[in-house]
Amino acid sequence: MSQLTGASYQLPKSSDDDKAGIDDFLSRNPSKPVIVVQGLGFVGGVMSLVCANAISCEYAVIGIDLPTPESYWKIRSFNEGVLPLKSSDSKVTEYFERACKKGNHYTTFDTYAYAHADIVIVDVNLDVQKQSSPEGELSEFDVDMAPFSGAIEAIANNCKPSVLIIVETTVPPGTCEKIVLPILRRGLSDRNLPTDSFRLGHSYERVMPGPNYIDSIQNYYRVYSGVDEESAVTTEKFLKTIIHTDEYPLTRLQGTNATEMAKVLENSYRAMNIAFMVEWSRFAEEAGVNLYDVVNAIRLRPTHSNLMYPGIGVGGYCLTKDALLASWARQNLIGKRQPLSQSESAININDQMPRFSFEYFQNIYPKLKGARILFLGVSYRGDVGDTRYSPVEKLFNYFSAVGAIVTCHDPYVKYWDEKSLEIEQDLNTHLSISPDIIIITTGHSIYKSKKIIDSLFALNTIFIYDTIGLLSADQIKFLEQKHTIKVLGRGDL
Amino acid sequence: MSQLTGASYQLPKSSDDDKAGIDDFLSRNPSKPVIVVQGLGFVGGVMSLVCANAISCEYAVIGIDLPTPESYWKIRSFNEGVLPLKSSDSKVTEYFERACKKGNHYTTFDTYAYAHADIVIVDVNLDVQKQSSPEGELSEFDVDMAPFSGAIEAIANNCKPSVLIIVETTVPPGTCEKIVLPILRRGLSDRNLPTDSFRLGHSYERVMPGPNYIDSIQNYYRVYSGVDEESAVTTEKFLKTIIHTDEYPLTRLQGTNATEMAKVLENSYRAMNIAFMVEWSRFAEEAGVNLYDVVNAIRLRPTHSNLMYPGIGVGGYCLTKDALLASWARQNLIGKRQPLSQSESAININDQMPRFSFEYFQNIYPKLKGARILFLGVSYRGDVGDTRYSPVEKLFNYFSAVGAIVTCHDPYVKYWDEKSLEIEQDLNTHLSISPDIIIITTGHSIYKSKKIIDSLFALNTIFIYDTIGLLSADQIKFLEQKHTIKVLGRGDL
Repeated sequence: MSQLTGASYQLPKSSDDDKAGIDDFLSRNPSKPVIVVQGLGFVGGVMSLVCANAISCEYAVIGIDLPTPESYWKIRSFNEGVLPLKSSDSKVTEYFERACKKGNHYTTFDTYAYAHADIVIVDVNLDVQKQSSPEGELSEFDVDMAPFSGAIEAIANNCKPSVLIIVETTVPPGTCEKIVLPILRRGLSDRNLPTDSFRLGHSYERVMPGPNYIDSIQNYYRVYSGVDEESAVTTEKFLKTIIHTDEYPLTRLQGTNATEMAKVLENSYRAMNIAFMVEWSRFAEEAGVNLYDVVNAIRLRPTHSNLMYPGIGVGGYCLTKDALLASWARQNLIGKRQPLSQSESAININDQMPRFSFEYFQNIYPKLKGARILFLGVSYRGDVGDTRYSPVEKLFNYFSAVGAIVTCHDPYVKYWDEKSLEIEQDLNTHLSISPDIIIITTGHSIYKSKKIIDSLFALNTIFIYDTIGLLSADQIKFLEQKHTIKVLGRGDL
Repeated sequence: MSQLTGASYQLPKSSDDDKAGIDDFLSRNPSKPVIVVQGLGFVGGVMSLVCANAISCEYAVIGIDLPTPESYWKIRSFNEGVLPLKSSDSKVTEYFERACKKGNHYTTFDTYAYAHADIVIVDVNLDVQKQSSPEGELSEFDVDMAPFSGAIEAIANNCKPSVLIIVETTVPPGTCEKIVLPILRRGLSDRNLPTDSFRLGHSYERVMPGPNYIDSIQNYYRVYSGVDEESAVTTEKFLKTIIHTDEYPLTRLQGTNATEMAKVLENSYRAMNIAFMVEWSRFAEEAGVNLYDVVNAIRLRPTHSNLMYPGIGVGGYCLTKDALLASWARQNLIGKRQPLSQSESAININDQMPRFSFEYFQNIYPKLKGARILFLGVSYRGDVGDTRYSPVEKLFNYFSAVGAIVTCHDPYVKYWDEKSLEIEQDLNTHLSISPDIIIITTGHSIYKSKKIIDSLFALNTIFIYDTIGLLSADQIKFLEQKHTIKVLGRGDL
């Protein structure tokens, strides 16, 4: 079912194919190089639009995904001219409309598409399976390479021998050389095709859903590599057709191990920066210190400008797992079978942040049973409708477990997948039930608007708990005249 | 004995005083506000020169330190017109010469100076006592507040009741309120003086010995606070007379707990950033990846621009201990008696970096017994002559322990205090003994000069080990024609 329009689609049967649709699309786009983007998620979906609106080449772009309940509706939706994602970046709609008009964008589930691809861009997921204690502590994790390998096999069993394959998926370092390359060689050799003319590059994406969604692909620094010189050169040539490399120059690294490592290192570093602040938040609360002020003072130093603020936790697809991909690779693909303990520990600490946020509040407000609590935001990131691994989910569970009655608002999320919850979009409806407590759980900028602050002020006396430091000093002063305010990491309140 | 001129001084007896010297100095500087800078180390020594060359006020500045073998020579040296520190920042000499000419700078050991101070700036040390295993692992640590408290008592027992005291020393959060304030009140009250007219501020320094020594005081962001409003205001007024606050605006925090926390948080963060790279260096070496290239690629992102490079270890007075000061404070001064475990662990990891650097090399070159090794640099920082807690010391010990014969060169260090070693200043003398191995241990830029690279090339075949990535790609290519090169964090070599 479409999560945006509610339209229902019958999943194709295993005997169904889409050859006619693909052939028809290609016949309408003769002599254009064909790109197949594998995976229509947060990266692939928008990547396919960027390719269809390339800077210096006119491509015929086919997006492909599995005919599953999670993905099939997106395939249909794209082809029906309905963008299957909600974005605060108007460029996304613009790019989609232009592609529709030009007719050079098509989506399908049929692997027959690979047979026509000059370029395949791999944007499928590669997940980590985490096991955690009820307290949120990471007890074990594993990386199941099977779904990813399966996706590569689908390419290997159908592609032309001269195809260029670019892996954008965040993978454990070593994956291109030790997993992708052998699968491709085997697939071609099994079909009695030459195994020395395909090219394999790796160039990880830095996609940020949100107001700069398109720019995070087209106007941003890219790192790339190839399994050999020819692959690197071909990858570079392609990237130059879709990215403004004059302003954001490409960086080539010596091999796929290096680029694969760069991506997970980048995200492990960010996860570590967040984890670093966790115990300092506690310390600031104990010492009566406003940690936000302290961080702002330190951030004036250019070397310290990316020090993080206190917060409710880490969400999203990357930061919650990439360090584990790296640690897994060191133990299973390349390296000394030793974990990356520190980086793992960053993930572990961050996974427990929602619990800390809950416990902090529970200490102040112990009678949570029966309390009516309104969460402002369920997305893991401000101004974005993305609930993947959102820390708000854990917070929701903790409050619910002690008998609080939690309702949620989020202007970017109509249906909260992970909790199977419809989200009432009208904030006034939420406020009209007179909550006892309002918890600011996501940094949507709308929650800072005068209108909403005034609505909060108008309520009967409540408790407001800001888990991310969204409220300004003036807003706190204003609301404090009537309500009780607590902010995570602010011991001075 | 003077470490620069070799001049010997008789230490004053306990009955000796310097009243006459102080009175004479003050009579030559009538009607100037008097600043006493307590502590003539890396911070206080240069701070006293900055005060004597204030921007918008003409002060009479007295530097004071203890009449100990470590400090007394500096007191004498200043007064004799010989700068007791070697610096690559020409402004230091310039400021000293100007102060000598104006005659508004004096140094003494006599606490009588405090009686005349309008402003006292506290720049004494506050050390952490670490206990480590032979492997460099931190097993225990403690903070002995006695010497610091003693320094504050010396002020409290002599100062005017209206004095402004500014603590610049990096202290455990809580120190000004819980330690300094009570000592000052007691000292004044014991002398039957009013205890409500002194002012107490905290404004931590960010002094960087090196080419921007003076600028790191005068042209840099400052954070300050006071124990009360009046103290904060007075502190601000003073800071504006010595710092270019038009360009580098001051940041006021709400209290001394906050500024004290800011300083140790800032340095803990940097220590953590360094520690983060340690296990990634190992991983890169195992994966055949050039981690420098990877880091450079990531650094293009503004949010990741301060990602650190691999290295030999952390040295200096601050980064090796500040996280421990914070953790100690959380357990002993304010907070929940819990350690800051992560931040402590950063120190612990960094303390072991010299051992990792040693083991990496030992794996490649196991026959170290009898090998003649030349270290290039003993300072902990490039282009600076500062050996305090230098990681090179630990590396020296590891190599010596397995029977290697280590000699050291450093253009900024004539005498290596911690090892009680004279350092031969002529590099050619070192090279003439034909070392088997040369290890680049400090990033002095001179070691990148064409002249030195050519000298290295001219040697008989040797092994060159770069522990800090000083050599450029071209230099490595050049030297590799003849020698074997290894660089920490470069698995591709």
